[in-house]
Amino acid sequence: MSLKNRRDFIKNSALLGASAFIGANALGSTLHEAQLSSETESGPFGNLLAPKNQGLKITGTFLDEISHDIPHQNWSEKEWDRDFRHMKAIGIDTVILIRCGYRKFITYPSKYLLSKGCYKPSTDLLEMYLKLADKYAMKFYFGLYDSGKYWDTGDMSYEVESNMHVIEEVWKHYGERHKSFKGWYISTEISRGTRSAIPSFRAMGKQCKDMSKGLHTFISPWIDGKKAVAASGSTLTKEDAVSVEQHEKEWNEIFAGIHEYVDACAFQDGQIDYHELDAFFEVNKKLADKYNMDCWTNAETFDRDMPIKFLPIKFDKLRMKLEAAKRAKYDKAITFEFSHFMSPQSAYLQAGHLYNRYKEYFNIK
Amino acid sequence: MSLKNRRDFIKNSALLGASAFIGANALGSTLHEAQLSSETESGPFGNLLAPKNQGLKITGTFLDEISHDIPHQNWSEKEWDRDFRHMKAIGIDTVILIRCGYRKFITYPSKYLLSKGCYKPSTDLLEMYLKLADKYAMKFYFGLYDSGKYWDTGDMSYEVESNMHVIEEVWKHYGERHKSFKGWYISTEISRGTRSAIPSFRAMGKQCKDMSKGLHTFISPWIDGKKAVAASGSTLTKEDAVSVEQHEKEWNEIFAGIHEYVDACAFQDGQIDYHELDAFFEVNKKLADKYNMDCWTNAETFDRDMPIKFLPIKFDKLRMKLEAAKRAKYDKAITFEFSHFMSPQSAYLQAGHLYNRYKEYFNIK
Amino acid sequence: MSLKNRRDFIKNSALLGASAFIGANALGSTLHEAQLSSETESGPFGNLLAPKNQGLKITGTFLDEISHDIPHQNWSEKEWDRDFRHMKAIGIDTVILIRCGYRKFITYPSKYLLSKGCYKPSTDLLEMYLKLADKYAMKFYFGLYDSGKYWDTGDMSYEVESNMHVIEEVWKHYGERHKSFKGWYISTEISRGTRSAIPSFRAMGKQCKDMSKGLHTFISPWIDGKKAVAASGSTLTKEDAVSVEQHEKEWNEIFAGIHEYVDACAFQDGQIDYHELDAFFEVNKKLADKYNMDCWTNAETFDRDMPIKFLPIKFDKLRMKLEAAKRAKYDKAITFEFSHFMSPQSAYLQAGHLYNRYKEYFNIK
Repeated sequence: MSLKNRRDFIKNSALLGASAFIGANALGSTLHEAQLSSETESGPFGNLLAPKNQGLKITGTFLDEISHDIPHQNWSEKEWDRDFRHMKAIGIDTVILIRCGYRKFITYPSKYLLSKGCYKPSTDLLEMYLKLADKYAMKFYFGLYDSGKYWDTGDMSYEVESNMHVIEEVWKHYGERHKSFKGWYISTEISRGTRSAIPSFRAMGKQCKDMSKGLHTFISPWIDGKKAVAASGSTLTKEDAVSVEQHEKEWNEIFAGIHEYVDACAFQDGQIDYHELDAFFEVNKKLADKYNMDCWTNAETFDRDMPIKFLPIKFDKLRMKLEAAKRAKYDKAITFEFSHFMSPQSAYLQAGHLYNRYKEYFNIK
Repeated sequence: MSLKNRRDFIKNSALLGASAFIGANALGSTLHEAQLSSETESGPFGNLLAPKNQGLKITGTFLDEISHDIPHQNWSEKEWDRDFRHMKAIGIDTVILIRCGYRKFITYPSKYLLSKGCYKPSTDLLEMYLKLADKYAMKFYFGLYDSGKYWDTGDMSYEVESNMHVIEEVWKHYGERHKSFKGWYISTEISRGTRSAIPSFRAMGKQCKDMSKGLHTFISPWIDGKKAVAASGSTLTKEDAVSVEQHEKEWNEIFAGIHEYVDACAFQDGQIDYHELDAFFEVNKKLADKYNMDCWTNAETFDRDMPIKFLPIKFDKLRMKLEAAKRAKYDKAITFEFSHFMSPQSAYLQAGHLYNRYKEYFNIK
Repeated sequence: MSLKNRRDFIKNSALLGASAFIGANALGSTLHEAQLSSETESGPFGNLLAPKNQGLKITGTFLDEISHDIPHQNWSEKEWDRDFRHMKAIGIDTVILIRCGYRKFITYPSKYLLSKGCYKPSTDLLEMYLKLADKYAMKFYFGLYDSGKYWDTGDMSYEVESNMHVIEEVWKHYGERHKSFKGWYISTEISRGTRSAIPSFRAMGKQCKDMSKGLHTFISPWIDGKKAVAASGSTLTKEDAVSVEQHEKEWNEIFAGIHEYVDACAFQDGQIDYHELDAFFEVNKKLADKYNMDCWTNAETFDRDMPIKFLPIKFDKLRMKLEAAKRAKYDKAITFEFSHFMSPQSAYLQAGHLYNRYKEYFNIK
């Protein structure tokens, strides 16, 4: 069965909510007729096993500073340098500072944010990351400041106001000096019912572009699926998940409003169920195409299905998400995030094994 | 004081709810009279310390695939091979696939389950485990499919229906080829108030036996004790725990109904408090004897008393549970599970230390 | 800017709730005028980075036996010996057994506690710790027994009663034999609204001192701040946090009642927010001075802000707490606790990195 056939199937079945990676069921009669014991290269049941190298490769990762809900690894520049090497080895060419600050904790000694009551950092992480991105010839995206006020009040005006200063300060003191500084990540995370976010996203995106002669900008919202629950809560799923149709309607409106100043959208892929991936990805790609935006996936490498929040994901789950992204012809896959959940030097030893499985799957030596 | 004396004490005290391993209290006046400073081999307080090698050895472990609530370690065959060696080194001769599939995730490329919408796995874990069990001369038990529908609806008929196909398929394609295939684990976990489970357990047990010329079958229910709370919840205990009397009454009924087709019962040992072990174990053994079933314990090697759900258990807690199982003359101890919670190569480094403590206690070189 | 200037600022701003470590804002106009690009030893932004070695060094740690809510590491004497060496290497001269027993689990074969139904331990941890403290020339504090009854009922009389026996037994069998036995930790943790604790603390403190010719005693209560939530709960913060004024009022009363028999108070530093540290620490120091008590800080090395409860803290958070303690002229910093959260051999690998960051900050070779 060729990949083309699978794609055709997806196209036809998308409206019905069918999911292309659902084994024999989704693949029509071909596999039903295959014998469980038929012989293939990979063993007696080979043709019923998922083949290798069918997914979209991860080429970008967030850098989780300032950390919000993932415990800190307390690395120094030595460990970060080694981690950039590990990233490079599997083809990662893009690093994204997830946010330059969260509430009072900040990544670089921002004169502006210090004047607003933020805490002095002990190291300049922004400078360090840019230096490493220069060294490893990677593209660096700068994540805007998150004051926390939007989370508390629903009002995004403080984010816009403070980031006007941050963008200017950062571009002047870091952006112009570093060849790796290639873009901006508008870090405010939204989902549905946030139509009011449009003017704010426009304003922040415009400021980024005006300041930096049009460098690339992107956002990474979440899909309000069944697993979109608070990290600190005790439940893993909820009842009132968004439908594909409602998701399309709401994001059509948002994309219409922001596409002039936001170049790409990398929806987080972890809040929906695995059999829902194709239906949502199809819509995301359609909307991105319509507004001439790049369609990225934020392939989460942590597992949302476990009572420990959060440890590295099982490889097969990651694989399925990357395969869905490839089937939907996404432009790029980034991940949240390499250093805790995929790195051979992560404090979570499962991460190093995930790294090895990933390399085997993509035939990376 | 001889072991026999301790046993007699337990017998006498069981009705009063007293617990035999409660140090001097339970041991009567002998130890009260001992001086704290009396000299023994193990130091000035030696005779008040728990002596070594009094527990039932663990000779079986679950293999946690498909994982339900314990984050995956992303091992390849290389790590699994090494783990079987670690198991063998402490006397484990039995491995039990905890379930061959859970909802849409499956361990082997089942033609039947794929036709029902399950996801294609990237490797055939069942084949791999059987190969390793053959290699290390272990007994392999196959855990039946768990569709999740019973958890959602309380109706077990789907489990029965789907496992009719699974049992046949697996026996034909794997069971007959592997000398290590020695039994079946009916993976549906129940506790109390599940009288309706009887016909389902009978049907599944009978199908396993009919298919495989009577191979051994077992179940591993939980005792509805104070720690029987949801893994994803935030509480650690509950108020409405079952009493020993009620537990006996309900399980007498269940055993009566299933004993023809279920050869052993391995109650999970982690939902009751440590001082309750003897009373419940006494009843479990009595019931098993009555119905001519084997009485196993599922000695959990993770700690249910901690806010992190779940990390390896403190050795003394495991020791107390294995000692209670020995006092109750249980037939076999299995554990959930070796590879996360006891293995020297576990991502949880506490597990390797538990392995070492276990070996010291049982004088394993 | 000299440290003195910072202190003056703190004094002046304390009443306003301002926080001295809040970067440029708190530091007045000096830094506002500094250029972001001004050159200093540590780079272009050096003078806006937090300088090194401004905190109070940690010289004591709890030993988390009997563990209550942190999963056990299953170490033997070999690992503990190595850990004492790691502690010593960063200047730790004091170890505190956090409690000699919790409910039915105990650290040493106490004749008294065994007679009350406690479980026999497999090793005598108290003897082991004292031996190691002797060997490494450390001061050992013995943590009293916690029956759990106070947590269940609010009544502390059982703690007083049982510890009368424990204190006598332990002093006689361990205290007199070990030169490292230097004090007592009254382990009952309280916070506010616990005026009734006064007579109990007096009684336990007096008994400790009477028995041991006046050895040092201390307590380690928590501040009822916004993060004072149950470890097993799913929330990270609460609304009804205590105010500085109310905290001062309540603890003035408690200190007045207990200061004759309690020599030091080490408030836990993790339940309040970082910008509240100065205001609370100022009050704590004032009260300690007033009643001629030593003012210690219990610098928590685990992170209370994360959904995983609990992993090692981010270094900058620890640094800020130790700097606040130094600004407030605290007498000593201890931590809960070294072996899980700071040790190079911790099962949490983040801990080893925290150890390295700590050493760099304090210029420890």
